[in-house]
Amino acid sequence: MFFRLRLFRSIRCFLPSSFYRPSAVCFCYSSRDNMSLKKKVCVVGSGNWGSTIAKIIGHNVVKHSEQFETQVSMWVFEEMINGRKLTEIINETHENVKYLPNHKLPENVIAIPDVVEAAKDADILIFVIPHQFITRICDQLVGKIKANAFGLSLIKGFLPVPGGGIELISHAINAKLNIPISVLMGANLAPEVADEKFCETTIGAASQDEGNILRDIIQTHYFRVVVVNDVEAVEMCGALKNIVACGAGFVDGLGYGDNTKAAVIRLGLMEMIKFAELFYPGSKLATFFESCGVADLITTCYGGRNRRVSEAFVKSKKSIAELEKEMLNGQQLQGPATAEEVNFMLKSKGIEDKFPLFTAIHRICLGELAPEQMIDCIRNHPEHM
Amino acid sequence: MFFRLRLFRSIRCFLPSSFYRPSAVCFCYSSRDNMSLKKKVCVVGSGNWGSTIAKIIGHNVVKHSEQFETQVSMWVFEEMINGRKLTEIINETHENVKYLPNHKLPENVIAIPDVVEAAKDADILIFVIPHQFITRICDQLVGKIKANAFGLSLIKGFLPVPGGGIELISHAINAKLNIPISVLMGANLAPEVADEKFCETTIGAASQDEGNILRDIIQTHYFRVVVVNDVEAVEMCGALKNIVACGAGFVDGLGYGDNTKAAVIRLGLMEMIKFAELFYPGSKLATFFESCGVADLITTCYGGRNRRVSEAFVKSKKSIAELEKEMLNGQQLQGPATAEEVNFMLKSKGIEDKFPLFTAIHRICLGELAPEQMIDCIRNHPEHM
Repeated sequence: MFFRLRLFRSIRCFLPSSFYRPSAVCFCYSSRDNMSLKKKVCVVGSGNWGSTIAKIIGHNVVKHSEQFETQVSMWVFEEMINGRKLTEIINETHENVKYLPNHKLPENVIAIPDVVEAAKDADILIFVIPHQFITRICDQLVGKIKANAFGLSLIKGFLPVPGGGIELISHAINAKLNIPISVLMGANLAPEVADEKFCETTIGAASQDEGNILRDIIQTHYFRVVVVNDVEAVEMCGALKNIVACGAGFVDGLGYGDNTKAAVIRLGLMEMIKFAELFYPGSKLATFFESCGVADLITTCYGGRNRRVSEAFVKSKKSIAELEKEMLNGQQLQGPATAEEVNFMLKSKGIEDKFPLFTAIHRICLGELAPEQMIDCIRNHPEHM
Repeated sequence: MFFRLRLFRSIRCFLPSSFYRPSAVCFCYSSRDNMSLKKKVCVVGSGNWGSTIAKIIGHNVVKHSEQFETQVSMWVFEEMINGRKLTEIINETHENVKYLPNHKLPENVIAIPDVVEAAKDADILIFVIPHQFITRICDQLVGKIKANAFGLSLIKGFLPVPGGGIELISHAINAKLNIPISVLMGANLAPEVADEKFCETTIGAASQDEGNILRDIIQTHYFRVVVVNDVEAVEMCGALKNIVACGAGFVDGLGYGDNTKAAVIRLGLMEMIKFAELFYPGSKLATFFESCGVADLITTCYGGRNRRVSEAFVKSKKSIAELEKEMLNGQQLQGPATAEEVNFMLKSKGIEDKFPLFTAIHRICLGELAPEQMIDCIRNHPEHM
C-alpha cells in the first residue's frame, strides 16, 4: 500500500490538479480493515481553534462523502450562556457564540456534551483542547473508542512528567488509548483561519495512509496541508517556539533592533533543531522548513502573547506571574513553563551549555538573570564555534 | 592543512574561549606562500556598510597584529563636502561624515581616492560597493593587484548578463581578477552593526584557510561569524530574499494578516532553496538556516525597503518606477529587478510553474497581474503537492 501511494504521488506532477487528491479508490483495497468503510470524525474540543477546525471538517466530509460519514460530532464542554446550554445554542444556531462568534458552523457538525458519547463511533479523533485537560479526557475515553480508530492532535505544548521533564502529547494519548496519533501544527492563528485567510499547516503523520486521509478532511483552498512523516519534530516545534518567542520579546523590550532579533530567532531555531536531534533521534532537518517550523516561529516571534508578555516583562520590571494576572486573566504563559520543563531535561543530561539561549531565557523568567544579560549568554554560542 | 584545521575545530569545545581563535601559528606552516606573511587588507568601498566594516577591520587587524599589517586602506569615491575632499576629512577627523556620521573610524584606516593605489599591496580585498559599479572597478584593478590576493564580497544582488539572465558577483570578480572570492551575507542592517548591536553574519568561504582568516578580521564580540563552504548559496540568499520581501510587502498592503505573511515568506524560502539546487547544484540545505538565509529573510520581510515600497505599491496603486522616484530618490528597488532577472532564467528553462511565487511577484511588479491575484498563484504550490 505504501508503495502504491508513493507511486501515486510520484505521477501527480503529470496530471491536472483535479487528479491530485487521492480518491477513496486508493484506500478501499488497503490491508487495514478501517480503510474500507466510510469514516466518522469526532472533534474533541470546541474552543476557538477547535470550532475553526470543526467548521473546516464539516465542509470537507460532505465534499468527500464517498470517504467520510457526513455527520461530525464535536465534544463541547457544557457551559451556560445567558441561561442556555452552549451545546443547544450550537445545535440550533450553528454558531459557537462563546468561542467563535460570527462564524457559522456547517449544520452537520453536532455538539455533544458527553465526550464518551461524542467519540464512541468515531474512526478519526481530532484532539483540540488545552493541554492540561488531555490526561483527564483520555482517562474518560479508555476502552470506549473503536479499536481501529486513529487520532490527530492539534494540542500545543508538552505534558510535564511528575518529578521533572516532559512527555509529548501524542505519546501520552497513544499510551492511554493505544491508537496511532498524528499531529498538526503551523502558522495558524485561529481567527485568521476562521476568516479563511490563506495559510499553510503541517501534519506529522503516524503513517502515510493516515496522513492522506487527514489531509482530505483538513485541506481547503485557503488552508494548505503538507504531510511529513516526522511526528515528534512537528510536535516539538509547536512547543519549543514559545521559548524562543520569550527571547524575541526580551529583545523588543530592550530595544535592540532587527539584527539582534533575527539572530535570537535563528539561534532559537538551531536550539530547537538540536533538541529534536538529541531527544528524538531521526528528526529531519527539512521538517523545520515546514509551516510548523520556521513559519510558525516567525509568526510567534512577531505576534503572539509570549512575545508580548516578555516585552512587558522587560519594560514593566514586573514578574511573569504578575503579568499573567494582568495581561492573560490569570492564564499561564506557555513559554516560561516550557522553558522550565526543557531546562529540567537539559540539566539532567548536563548539557545546559549546549543550549545557552533556552537556558538564559529560563533563568530570566525565574528572575535569576537580568534580561540585559541574555545576549552575553549567546555571544559564544556553539553555533559560532 | 585542511585536516589540521578540522582537528583544531573539533577540540575547541574542550578549551576555554581564549583558545578558540586560530592563532597565526596555525597558518605559518601552510603550503600556500601567502599564508606565511602578515597580510594587508584593503576595503574597496566607503558607503554606510563599507565604513562600518572598515571600522571593524581596523580594530581587528590591531588585535591580531601577528597576522595582519595594522594599516588598512579604504578606497573612497572622492566627493567634495562643504568644499573639502571626503578623503581628507576622513583621514583628519577619522569620521565618514557623509555615509557613517557620528562613528569614529580607527586611525589606522586610511582613505585613498585612487582604487589602484588603495589595492596594490593588499593581500585581502573587501568589496563593498553598489553592485552596478563592480565591473568598472574590477576593470581598473586588472593586472594591478597581488597575484596571491584573495577577496571577500559584501555586495548584494546579481549582475545582469547582456541578453538576459544573471551572473553571481563573486563569479564576475573572479573572472576579472582571477583571485578566489568568498562572500559575506547576513541579517546585518548597517546602522545597527555600526551601533555595535549584537548580530550574526555568514561567510561563504572559497577555502577553509581563507574562511578562518576572514573570520579573524571580521568577527567581534557583537558581530558573530559563521563560516560555511557554500559560496553560491550564501550569495544567492542575499539577492533572492529581496524578491520574497516584495511578496511580504504585497501581503502587508492587502492586509492579509500574520498567517498569510508567514506562508509567503516560507514559500519564498523554499523557492530560494529550489533555485539554488537547480542553478548551483551542490548548494546545502543547512546554509539556508544560517544568518544569510532565514535570519536575513525575516529581517528583510519585516523591515527593509523592498517590503515598504511593495506595501505602498498596493496601497497607492502607483507603479514601482513612480514609487522609486518618490520613496527612494530615484534609486532602483532591488526586488523587482532581481525578480525580472530570475524570471528570465526560469522562462529560458521552461520552469516558471515550479516557482509560482517568484513568477507572480515578477508579473505583479510589471503590472501584468493584480496583487490580489498573488495568493491564487500559490494555492497549488508544488510544495503542497
